[in-house]
Amino acid sequence: MTEGPFDSARRALRPVDAAAMAAAAEHHDRLTKPRRSLGRLEDIGIRLSGIAAECPPPVPEPVMVAVFAADHGVVAEGVTPWPQEVTAQMVANFCTGGAAINVLARAAGAQVVVVDVGVATPIPSDGGQLVRRPVRAGTRNLAAGPAMTVDEAVAALDIGADVAREAVDRGSGLLVTGDMGIGNTTASAAVIARFTRRPAAEVTGRGTGIDDEMLKRKVGVVERALARVAPDADPLEALAALGGLEIAALSGFVVGAAAARVPVVVDGVIATAALLVAAALAPEALGYVIAGHRSAEPGASAALSHLGLEPVLDLGMRLGEGSGAVLAVPVVQAAARILREMATFDAAGVSDKGDPRD
Amino acid sequence: MTEGPFDSARRALRPVDAAAMAAAAEHHDRLTKPRRSLGRLEDIGIRLSGIAAECPPPVPEPVMVAVFAADHGVVAEGVTPWPQEVTAQMVANFCTGGAAINVLARAAGAQVVVVDVGVATPIPSDGGQLVRRPVRAGTRNLAAGPAMTVDEAVAALDIGADVAREAVDRGSGLLVTGDMGIGNTTASAAVIARFTRRPAAEVTGRGTGIDDEMLKRKVGVVERALARVAPDADPLEALAALGGLEIAALSGFVVGAAAARVPVVVDGVIATAALLVAAALAPEALGYVIAGHRSAEPGASAALSHLGLEPVLDLGMRLGEGSGAVLAVPVVQAAARILREMATFDAAGVSDKGDPRD
Repeated sequence: MTEGPFDSARRALRPVDAAAMAAAAEHHDRLTKPRRSLGRLEDIGIRLSGIAAECPPPVPEPVMVAVFAADHGVVAEGVTPWPQEVTAQMVANFCTGGAAINVLARAAGAQVVVVDVGVATPIPSDGGQLVRRPVRAGTRNLAAGPAMTVDEAVAALDIGADVAREAVDRGSGLLVTGDMGIGNTTASAAVIARFTRRPAAEVTGRGTGIDDEMLKRKVGVVERALARVAPDADPLEALAALGGLEIAALSGFVVGAAAARVPVVVDGVIATAALLVAAALAPEALGYVIAGHRSAEPGASAALSHLGLEPVLDLGMRLGEGSGAVLAVPVVQAAARILREMATFDAAGVSDKGDPRD
Repeated sequence: MTEGPFDSARRALRPVDAAAMAAAAEHHDRLTKPRRSLGRLEDIGIRLSGIAAECPPPVPEPVMVAVFAADHGVVAEGVTPWPQEVTAQMVANFCTGGAAINVLARAAGAQVVVVDVGVATPIPSDGGQLVRRPVRAGTRNLAAGPAMTVDEAVAALDIGADVAREAVDRGSGLLVTGDMGIGNTTASAAVIARFTRRPAAEVTGRGTGIDDEMLKRKVGVVERALARVAPDADPLEALAALGGLEIAALSGFVVGAAAARVPVVVDGVIATAALLVAAALAPEALGYVIAGHRSAEPGASAALSHLGLEPVLDLGMRLGEGSGAVLAVPVVQAAARILREMATFDAAGVSDKGDPRD
């Protein structure tokens, strides 16, 4: 059997370049500012240098947001007030440019690619903008049995890795994760609980805004799903049992970006669930990741803390689609510009009597 | 005596438009997203609507960063490791485009205007880029007596208001505060302690990075200065006693922006000190302010909390110059675009079975 795009990305993966990161840290200290005074912007610059394996790193552009859309059989459990058709309707909205992700991507100069990896209902109209790669018409109900077969999960991982690879081949210098899928905060909570080994109640949130009764039901659904997964199940089995097609595709997308040595900005709770899977399957991918924002959803913070990531933004957003991640793009790009464009003390003739901590 | 630019701005000040803010909140709820799911981005959009007195508000552009530079007599007390000449050297660096604020402003498509309101040493070279409005060659030592006379403080307030007015007259739609002045975190700490009525030790920080001994000295200097100001001194007297020429100019700049009904993004500890003064002298100005970021300096958080402001970014930055504020500009502009460009549920044909909290 030939190797699929995901396995091939995983095999191509290399760690970020430690020497370029050290060079960036040193270069920051020669720039006309007190040492470390740009805070986390310096950390991002160091990371971009490691990813590009050069200092200064290129400004990461052009930017592509990939929005992976899929449905979730778990909506049968009454875990969301939104009808399943909204997934398809929002896909059409993405394709005609009216959703938040379109607005925010335009503002950041980013392109949006929408990929159907498993939307269950007919998509009203897509203006030819949609990439149609459906694995199946939505997952099965994860409360009742595995959401996907392992083969289906691998197919979605492959699509994600493919989309990343193709974007980089066409010149993308920065990838951003996006997602759409009614019910997907339930699947994400299940994945996050499993991969961080935290209780369901701790990582299950109100998603798009549900009441106490629905939240209680949602936690129960996640608990039942978790109980079904063998303690020694491998990451792929756990993903298939608990995840979603867009979650699996996003895991593949992150690993694909990393294999192509391109930074990837991850969004909120769906993307961080996918990132946990990616990190379990291909740990070195994590070095290529920048957490775009801290979603208001509790699972997102649990995943970020498990992975040791500090997000760029913290604006109480909980929309998904890639909206928080794409909003962080100008900050990420600015971090590269600092290393590329700022004057050094020597060049600017500024006295560096600086830092008594040295 | 004719009314100066600051008093004239203060008299022109009007509250932000409550009806436009209510319209923006309602419009957000019709857009294709769960209610409130864009978090603080929605709050910023509401504020921009109030400032513009229309919904949707215009995208706030073009952007101008005004960097007010001045020196501080308090450096005689040994509160900073940097020589005073660095103020002039950095002004030259701003004028030739090599400083962090230049890089970050270019990234945000913003213009930088540098205003000398009291640099003490000769400015190496400015390429004709510098606005020269020196009130005096730096403040007096605030540890030993008032930093400025009230007339000098008013002169600086007037310059700030003037610069804002002129920028808006030339078409600026968004103003950003910037500052430079070796020693100015000491003056800012004194102003913040006075206006928030907090102890010096709570609001005095390490600025550009000082050791424990220097910090102890700095706190002592702030305490002595505070002890000299009468408990019933008015805000203008307190500003003159404790502040700096760039701090006073920034207070005037904020009020000038507000009077012209243009949003102003404020930077870190120096700018928030100036904002406390502006809010004391002209409370309605606060409605036009967006806090750009949370500086790592403790006084900044004290000032923000006193004023009830939540900053856009929190990246551990402590550089000043306007660097954190200008980095927040794309987020601020995106908030306006959301209100202008997103599709409504009706227009996009997306089902709004939405929110059980309604």
